[in-house]
Amino acid sequence: MEDCVFCKIVAGKIPCAKVYEDDFIISFLDIMPANRGHCLVLPKMHCETFLDIADKELENLVKVTKKIAKSLSLSIGNGSFNLVMNNGAAAGQVVNHAHLHIIPRFKGDRLRIKWSHKKYEDGEMEEIQQKIRKFM
Amino acid sequence: MEDCVFCKIVAGKIPCAKVYEDDFIISFLDIMPANRGHCLVLPKMHCETFLDIADKELENLVKVTKKIAKSLSLSIGNGSFNLVMNNGAAAGQVVNHAHLHIIPRFKGDRLRIKWSHKKYEDGEMEEIQQKIRKFM
Repeated sequence: MEDCVFCKIVAGKIPCAKVYEDDFIISFLDIMPANRGHCLVLPKMHCETFLDIADKELENLVKVTKKIAKSLSLSIGNGSFNLVMNNGAAAGQVVNHAHLHIIPRFKGDRLRIKWSHKKYEDGEMEEIQQKIRKFM
Repeated sequence: MEDCVFCKIVAGKIPCAKVYEDDFIISFLDIMPANRGHCLVLPKMHCETFLDIADKELENLVKVTKKIAKSLSLSIGNGSFNLVMNNGAAAGQVVNHAHLHIIPRFKGDRLRIKWSHKKYEDGEMEEIQQKIRKFM
């Protein structure tokens, strides 16, 4: 896609510190890392969110992600990492080409990737459960 | 695993608001949700982190996650959601049975799942890139 910064990286028009590439997937270091070694993994084909990635590509993506997370752990990490994928504007997605973050974590790194907890009212949980199941 | 709360849910010894189940995967509503409809997806077989999940199971997990994320979007969401998987104590993993969070997001929901950005020193990015590639 013409205006997509990740499509430009895939096409080699913008340089990146590549850590993995095959016919379908590319991975490179995030230039604005949450921690050293923060990688992005994405399908080369432009698609907006996780929901737009074809099943076959998702299978590739998840296996490549495991390969990279393992390599990160053996090289500069310690086996602790967050996988994060923001989908849609309300979820904080900035580049509209689906991408997954692998963020190596270190004890005391002060990174805060967590959330406050809400509470369900009585019966609300069952109501939501039924709504979701209806569309499965 | 005897002391694992998620293994107990899988075995039916602890109740849950189930939204999906097959032979390998289970998904249910998080009882301490970041937002209404926050789901957990996990392999039934006990394994500690993402790195311990067999490739075949990962393929299942990611396809089921897509199915649930789509259903969440159609039922109570709007297509915006975070996927998060915390692996290891330093990454904030609390229950040591690998699990993935699907968190529906709504405009102005005040949930903050993001991070501050660090900067690489000159040459540091290339050094890390080489280290990671060495273990691929």
